[in-house]
Amino acid sequence: MAATSLNVGLIGLGTVGSQVAERLVTGQPQLTRRAGLELCLQRILVRDVNKPRAVTVEPGLLTNDPDLLLDDNDIQVIVEVAGGDEPMHSYLERAISAGKHVVTANKVVMANHGMQLLTLAAEKNVDVYFEAAVGGGIPLISTFRTDLQANRIERLSAVINGTTNYVLGRMGTDGLALEDAVKEAQAAGYAEADPTDDIEGFDATYKLAILGSIAYEISVRPGDIYREGINGIEPVDFRYARELGYAIKLVAHTQRHRGRVEARVHPALVPLDHPLAQVEGADNAVFVEGDLVGRVLLKGQGAGGRPTASAVVGDLIDLARSIRRGVQNRPSFTFDDRVGVVPMGEVVTRAYYRIRAEDRPGVLAAVGQVFAEEGVSISSFIQKDAWVEEKTAELVITTHPTEDTRLQKARERIAGLQPVRAVSSFLRVF
Amino acid sequence: MAATSLNVGLIGLGTVGSQVAERLVTGQPQLTRRAGLELCLQRILVRDVNKPRAVTVEPGLLTNDPDLLLDDNDIQVIVEVAGGDEPMHSYLERAISAGKHVVTANKVVMANHGMQLLTLAAEKNVDVYFEAAVGGGIPLISTFRTDLQANRIERLSAVINGTTNYVLGRMGTDGLALEDAVKEAQAAGYAEADPTDDIEGFDATYKLAILGSIAYEISVRPGDIYREGINGIEPVDFRYARELGYAIKLVAHTQRHRGRVEARVHPALVPLDHPLAQVEGADNAVFVEGDLVGRVLLKGQGAGGRPTASAVVGDLIDLARSIRRGVQNRPSFTFDDRVGVVPMGEVVTRAYYRIRAEDRPGVLAAVGQVFAEEGVSISSFIQKDAWVEEKTAELVITTHPTEDTRLQKARERIAGLQPVRAVSSFLRVF
Repeated sequence: MAATSLNVGLIGLGTVGSQVAERLVTGQPQLTRRAGLELCLQRILVRDVNKPRAVTVEPGLLTNDPDLLLDDNDIQVIVEVAGGDEPMHSYLERAISAGKHVVTANKVVMANHGMQLLTLAAEKNVDVYFEAAVGGGIPLISTFRTDLQANRIERLSAVINGTTNYVLGRMGTDGLALEDAVKEAQAAGYAEADPTDDIEGFDATYKLAILGSIAYEISVRPGDIYREGINGIEPVDFRYARELGYAIKLVAHTQRHRGRVEARVHPALVPLDHPLAQVEGADNAVFVEGDLVGRVLLKGQGAGGRPTASAVVGDLIDLARSIRRGVQNRPSFTFDDRVGVVPMGEVVTRAYYRIRAEDRPGVLAAVGQVFAEEGVSISSFIQKDAWVEEKTAELVITTHPTEDTRLQKARERIAGLQPVRAVSSFLRVF
Repeated sequence: MAATSLNVGLIGLGTVGSQVAERLVTGQPQLTRRAGLELCLQRILVRDVNKPRAVTVEPGLLTNDPDLLLDDNDIQVIVEVAGGDEPMHSYLERAISAGKHVVTANKVVMANHGMQLLTLAAEKNVDVYFEAAVGGGIPLISTFRTDLQANRIERLSAVINGTTNYVLGRMGTDGLALEDAVKEAQAAGYAEADPTDDIEGFDATYKLAILGSIAYEISVRPGDIYREGINGIEPVDFRYARELGYAIKLVAHTQRHRGRVEARVHPALVPLDHPLAQVEGADNAVFVEGDLVGRVLLKGQGAGGRPTASAVVGDLIDLARSIRRGVQNRPSFTFDDRVGVVPMGEVVTRAYYRIRAEDRPGVLAAVGQVFAEEGVSISSFIQKDAWVEEKTAELVITTHPTEDTRLQKARERIAGLQPVRAVSSFLRVF
């Protein structure tokens, strides 16, 4: 007997969950027609069943007992939009083990345990969908899993953290200090009460781990990815960057090398005419290069309830169709574990140094000497903003591509030069 | 017994076909792993089997007899990259009727006969893939068919003809006349010997018909779409546009209204900060707005052998996986035929007029009087470039949003005013 409905257990009824629930309830006729099956919301796991909700759902659907979803044989798919590693990882593992399909927006679980869950799902002949885990409703996972499959992916550069992009935008446009821009982002709903995950770049590494793993069919773990957050950038850096023809963005970048990949998340000067320089506000964008397709840009809202719900419900429809078509064997993902990540020190990149030094003869010669000894070739040089009273000046230097280890060595040595007060900023140039 | 290979009959071995053949041959191990089946190129239909080819294929694969592909029961999928309506439409119809799957890059066939072929395919329980028909390797069809399925699509604006975008770019940047820019595009391989299809906007209407049909699940025929080409635009229009803060692009646009949709292809002034204004060279971009996902931009190379082959082979891999998973029932497309296209006269838009008039008192009053009588409100006005010897001046006027029929009426009446020599340009403002 052909299935006529797909019974859904939803975990989480916050920003994303409410939108998913609302679409499942109010969009019913259209979704049923598109999916070929009725998508029935059977039960919703929440922390507090009595909390007032923005969305109207039948009170009987709510529970705080995960077993009522995970042990219910009538529930065929678990939709998880609660976030965080545990207990969600265990819930999803239990669901898959019990033969349930999974649709998740959980970047942490997918970045840390994705390979394990996908392997388990293949054994159990169920599907795991996770389009919503990266870039809200922008079609990313599906693009790599399907559309670009004929390609060898050469590189992928992305702005995939909306919070830092908003913060950097406010610093660059209006000269706000980092902490003020963060407060504004919190007030606007773009940053969480504790913004560490975003500001320190952790969020971007989770997402890059997922994208890199899918794009290259290798296992990229968040811990393998070089990570630097946006702390320490000052408004003056945006002014110098602009003068030199750059914006400052938190860039997630991965690139194929012989038998290895580069994978790094850090703030970078991005040329103003590069598509990533034009990603504004809390938007996300992924710029990917494949050997056949050339360069493709995918851009949109990277987070938020409605865009993320778009991806979750899109995944559900895809799953429903697959069930309706009577799919017998799920594909198993293959990940090549022999491919390693290039250590950051070996990565070849350009750099930007902002140096505060005493305004006296010989400073430039000393700094230049260090660069020369470390084999770093200078691309541009600006001396500015002499603080006459303090007798200090600011030197802004960009370099040609060099191994990162030498750029760092130069940075340390310059910071130790007698007339140098500080290397106030060190940023890579993209 | 589970299938271990998917036997492919290829129609066309030109720019796209060579790239498809080459990837199928040289990419074999990777494709087999990704597809789960071996993709076997069994036979290639070409016009002239003796023509020298850039790609090396076994000579025995080539034939000029379509029956050797269409009547061969060992061939399970026809990949058509030859283009044009007939005989390709008949070939694909025959293939589907014989129970073969189809992967096509043919925008003309899909725009004119897509609904019929998809209906036939559903009856025969085979798949028709056509990602390559629009926008090269940019994931468009799959995005609408899968990723955005939870959404109601509100509008879609696109630069989907690379030839005209290249030509307009050259006119705007270097002040080339249209015919010189077309010659340059031909030399660069971006325009065909007969560029009519591109320059007159036909190509863009085929693509918009396909995208609009998929996005709204309605039947949009190319003939339903209002169409204007780029003839008549002069380099001076780019100068005025830039001064007013706009680029000039050939825009394909469709938008949802109550029970109807707007669908039009015409050159338009696009605000410089709009993503479509930043589409350069022969690139394509689609800017789509859904009720959940918000605004998404998809951008990349819209044509060419390799990007198009990326989409064709991506489709083939998807098909192979579907066969390997033992899919029993293909989805049938539903198209709502009750939804009509809004006649252009009823479309509300802004407009740009460039008017050549005698340089004497009363001209502006006369022009202003016509606009007032037609209920068209003026947004900006520039008077420039008086040719002293001819005693003529150029008036550049942009309007607020108005029904197109009234903008046209004003245009005719102004052209007929005694002191007006000509309405040299009339363009919509986006």
